[in-house]
Amino acid sequence: MRGAERGLFVTLEGIDGTGKSTQSMALARALREMGREVLLTREPGGSTGAEEIRRLLLEGPPDRWSAETEILLFTAARRDHMEKTIQPALEAGRIVVCDRFADSTRVYQGITRGDLRGKVDALHDLMIGRDPDLTFVLDMPPDKGLARARARNNGEERFEDFGLGMQERMRTGFLELAQTLPHRCRVIDANRAPDIIAADIFRLVRRALP
Amino acid sequence: MRGAERGLFVTLEGIDGTGKSTQSMALARALREMGREVLLTREPGGSTGAEEIRRLLLEGPPDRWSAETEILLFTAARRDHMEKTIQPALEAGRIVVCDRFADSTRVYQGITRGDLRGKVDALHDLMIGRDPDLTFVLDMPPDKGLARARARNNGEERFEDFGLGMQERMRTGFLELAQTLPHRCRVIDANRAPDIIAADIFRLVRRALP
Ligand SMILES: Nc1ncnc2c1ncn2[C@@H]1O[C@H](COP(=O)(O)OP(=O)(O)O)[C@@H](O)[C@H]1O
Ligand SMILES: Nc1ncnc2c1ncn2[C@@H]1O[C@H](COP(=O)(O)OP(=O)(O)O)[C@@H](O)[C@H]1O
Ligand SMILES: [Mg+2]
Ligand SMILES: [Mg+2]
Repeated sequence: MRGAERGLFVTLEGIDGTGKSTQSMALARALREMGREVLLTREPGGSTGAEEIRRLLLEGPPDRWSAETEILLFTAARRDHMEKTIQPALEAGRIVVCDRFADSTRVYQGITRGDLRGKVDALHDLMIGRDPDLTFVLDMPPDKGLARARARNNGEERFEDFGLGMQERMRTGFLELAQTLPHRCRVIDANRAPDIIAADIFRLVRRALP
Repeated sequence: MRGAERGLFVTLEGIDGTGKSTQSMALARALREMGREVLLTREPGGSTGAEEIRRLLLEGPPDRWSAETEILLFTAARRDHMEKTIQPALEAGRIVVCDRFADSTRVYQGITRGDLRGKVDALHDLMIGRDPDLTFVLDMPPDKGLARARARNNGEERFEDFGLGMQERMRTGFLELAQTLPHRCRVIDANRAPDIIAADIFRLVRRALP
């Protein structure tokens, strides 16, 4: 579904508490300060319909949906987000900064239900068919990320209650994904001060600007 | 996702007002009267999660979702319905009578967005992978069906506001589908008295009972 695009599609990925939301906001601010038009968005959610699907996904008990239904709902939300929010912004020449995207689904499924990874990829190819231009994988030891994440409290903890072992496997999953997709993925050491990380990310985005 | 099944999976399809809901109930009643255990269900919906997705699909303005997002949501609801309601009943040896199923999505998409029919089939194969054992296509002239449907009023009219031309193409779509799937589809003349139709359907189901 790639139209005539003049923008740049940037995503931030990584386990909980690594600073994705913090860095997404910092990046949007820095780009706006240099006069660029930026759309800051997030997944799951990012459009009216997708936010409604997000509520179905993030609220309620952990076993509310099977893994299969969950990837269908994530893909439906992503499709809506793509059509209504991301694609129009890219076509208008904006820089899209998205806090989590399809790689989160890939890694999460690859870890929790390895046999579903093929279905996740098939669904993505069939119904989304658009990857980011640039993806930052924020990387740090899960115990530190988890401690950061637990300091927050926003009522959407369904996906944060995994425990350390799971976060460790997710971290490895993100690093492996980044290795297989070197054309768009950059691994960032997230165990540093926020403004140091922000400067790293900003420099790499500037280089990729159209 | 077919387990060790001892039941029979029967669906009723056709355009609005042809009597799918009426005949589903009549069939369930007749089977119960002969001592069979029956699960009567419907789509979209049929399980707690699927009913919530159904609300997203059936309420709101017609352009709330794109056709692509819509088929993802229908497939998510169907997957939940399959796992939580249909499959367990079939495994327990029940006869499942379902008011609309995947054929409605196939025909609806084939008519409104012919280019999406391939995606509907691919999604079904990837995420559902189970067809009914027996499908009744209730057939009658759309003007008569539409008149019947308009006599009802249940607040879920989003898919009924198509007009005659559209219903005519849907009717043709169902008939063509039935022709390509003769092993499970039976076309039923729905322009007759309800108990005559019910007797026809009951006779065909009895013959197929395990
Ligand atoms: N580099 C950093 N050093 C210390 N604390 C941080 C850093 N980045 C973010 N935080 C804090 O850690 C918590 C989690 O950050 P957040 O951006 O919400 O992470 P994520 O979106 O990846 O889960 C927040 O309270 C945030 O203020
Ligand atoms: N064979 C029939 N003859 C006349 N009216 C019917 C017949 N079957 C159903 N009806 C009536 O037509 C309306 C639509 O029937 P319904 O079963 O709700 O159709 P569907 O579920 O296919 O839209 C209802 O008011 C129902 O009572
Ligand atoms: Mg966050
Ligand atoms: Mg009905």
